[in-house]
Amino acid sequence: MNERAALDVVGGLVAGAGDDAAVVDDTVFTIDMLHETTDFPAGTTRYTAGWRSVGASLSDVAAMGADATAAVGVYGAPDFDEDGLRAYVEGALDVCEAVGAEYVGGDLDGHDEFTVATAAIGRTDDPVRRDGASPGDALVVTGTLGRTAAAMERFDSGDVERANELFRFEPRVRAGRALAGHATAMMDSSDGLARSLHQLAEASDCGFAVDGDSVPVAEELRDVVEDPLDTAVTYGEDFELVATVPESAVGVVRAESDVPLSIVGEVTASGVTLDGEPLADRGWTH
Amino acid sequence: MNERAALDVVGGLVAGAGDDAAVVDDTVFTIDMLHETTDFPAGTTRYTAGWRSVGASLSDVAAMGADATAAVGVYGAPDFDEDGLRAYVEGALDVCEAVGAEYVGGDLDGHDEFTVATAAIGRTDDPVRRDGASPGDALVVTGTLGRTAAAMERFDSGDVERANELFRFEPRVRAGRALAGHATAMMDSSDGLARSLHQLAEASDCGFAVDGDSVPVAEELRDVVEDPLDTAVTYGEDFELVATVPESAVGVVRAESDVPLSIVGEVTASGVTLDGEPLADRGWTH
Repeated sequence: MNERAALDVVGGLVAGAGDDAAVVDDTVFTIDMLHETTDFPAGTTRYTAGWRSVGASLSDVAAMGADATAAVGVYGAPDFDEDGLRAYVEGALDVCEAVGAEYVGGDLDGHDEFTVATAAIGRTDDPVRRDGASPGDALVVTGTLGRTAAAMERFDSGDVERANELFRFEPRVRAGRALAGHATAMMDSSDGLARSLHQLAEASDCGFAVDGDSVPVAEELRDVVEDPLDTAVTYGEDFELVATVPESAVGVVRAESDVPLSIVGEVTASGVTLDGEPLADRGWTH
Repeated sequence: MNERAALDVVGGLVAGAGDDAAVVDDTVFTIDMLHETTDFPAGTTRYTAGWRSVGASLSDVAAMGADATAAVGVYGAPDFDEDGLRAYVEGALDVCEAVGAEYVGGDLDGHDEFTVATAAIGRTDDPVRRDGASPGDALVVTGTLGRTAAAMERFDSGDVERANELFRFEPRVRAGRALAGHATAMMDSSDGLARSLHQLAEASDCGFAVDGDSVPVAEELRDVVEDPLDTAVTYGEDFELVATVPESAVGVVRAESDVPLSIVGEVTASGVTLDGEPLADRGWTH
């Protein structure tokens, strides 16, 4: 059974599953697990691992349009090297500070493979889910796409310092707050834009028409891959927000957001296209 | 660096670390990671794994004297077998239902070793921490000790069905609520009674005198190990509550608790003893 089918099994058992974070009263609540073989290429520092893993959970909070309150983490490693552990916690503290949340601790676990689990909570009385997009809404994306793909190229080529910088994304909590109250649907782009659009299309029973020239391809990606647009759209793990917003509200949202917001297309009745051609459901599989 | 030293490193960086769960405003928040080689002996069903892993996080909520609100989990496995995943989620749902909490989903992760991460949140405006025990307080324990040790014996001997039953403990949320407002210090017994007492002694700057005859040794342990009392006191992973309570309040707490509460000793000025002999800081190391 692949991950999508498995998520359907969980969705059949757990009420309210299917968004980036669960909603319990006015609290949003999410958990993630990352580990060495799939998430931390050789050269990833423990500081970056702390930043990125806790950031992934904070991104889920952002994707619900919530304020980020706090995060916790488990550091699982074959041995507890003091410098590594300290760096991990400092990365976790710093990414929380960047979005106004508190890192409040967690646990340790002896584990053959370096594996971290993180959870975050946030607050909102009006969560943005995936199912409210309507034809005619503008499709917007925060920041740039392809940053993680660019980081992976640099891990491969040995420019590890720059790779680590690119790996430390800022969770879009403030942009998510700006979008809350205006966005009709939202999720983060951790599976890549293409896959995200297919998921939003399914949840909202709509389609998307993407304009390739408007996609904010990360500058760092331009010289290192053959087809930067394709990579930016499908690679994933960028943790930007993908949202649908009535066109009339885009100006207000942009004024309140701390990062650029690009209109990359619009919501249609059905089908997901890039420059008029079908955009396949390709992307990151966790 | 061993786990204790590593926890001290985290404690030096993260304000408020050192209790069973973190406290953020009126929310308690905790995360755990369990995995096959150290936590799930051969024969552990996925249902039991779901129950036990989510239960471990709910136990941390209980140990703060909080109401359990909700839990989430990540199911990490080499492949997503539908029956296994479904059983895991059902175990998670059932343990939440047993304590009045909601299981609200989580995530999946392809992982070489079966590994699960769980987080739980709860509410209290008056959390019970580890640092308030005073000489003269009664030392109380919920339920029985040695249940997990008894389960391990049965996993070894092949009585897997009974082992699984013993592995599915009920998180002591209701007893924790009964203790809240009265207990001066509290934690769960996941590291074993002996180690828990050393931790409470350090946090509260006190000692403990335990009366061996009063320790509620699990019936199932009596015939299967050589020294049931020693095993019950040191094995750990029972997820009972260990608390200190002014003797005058024990009656009220017992009346409100849904499980038996044993007075197993008292708080002293210093030293941890069992029947007058030093009780070493031995127990479960995660």
